[in-house]
Amino acid sequence: MARVVVEVMPKPEILDPQGKAVTGALARLGFEGMTVRQGKRFEIEVEGELDEQRLAQVRDAAERLLANTVIEAYDVRADDAPVVEAEPSLQPSTVGTLTEDVQQ
Amino acid sequence: MARVVVEVMPKPEILDPQGKAVTGALARLGFEGMTVRQGKRFEIEVEGELDEQRLAQVRDAAERLLANTVIEAYDVRADDAPVVEAEPSLQPSTVGTLTEDVQQ
Repeated sequence: MARVVVEVMPKPEILDPQGKAVTGALARLGFEGMTVRQGKRFEIEVEGELDEQRLAQVRDAAERLLANTVIEAYDVRADDAPVVEAEPSLQPSTVGTLTEDVQQ
Repeated sequence: MARVVVEVMPKPEILDPQGKAVTGALARLGFEGMTVRQGKRFEIEVEGELDEQRLAQVRDAAERLLANTVIEAYDVRADDAPVVEAEPSLQPSTVGTLTEDVQQ
């Protein structure tokens, strides 16, 4: 299992209403001189060997689904951070309510 | 002007409905063996010198506004990628409709 990170950001020439809203909120909280742009980050666990062909598939997935390439730019890179397994009882496939005892 | 990147992801033990939806969509498009977790990415242009104190302010901003620390984990790091200025005619402060002539 390998992990690939896809980062999607609004293109520089595109207005970024979300970023502007966050920028305004930070200023109201007293954080001066910070201008924010907001995008998305995808961590993709890829089964099997992460060869060039597999990485090309992830790029294709980014192009077709993860990014709106008219207004967004994306970056795809293999991530060598250790894959953190969710606790067995909370595997994503487990149907259940949000657990209350999430440690701080 | 320096740039700091803040990455916010759902904690591993937390169910990620957005990620599950994207995972399902990828499978329907024929992308097999990919499990997706979705988070947010903030690029913050910080005025002035990016010293430890300034970086601590960004961490504080992440803790208080950018991340919901009950269900999300965040990472803050200085980013040495060149700051890409938006074209003068499309500065974020420019009020106007989304331009149609965005080059592919």
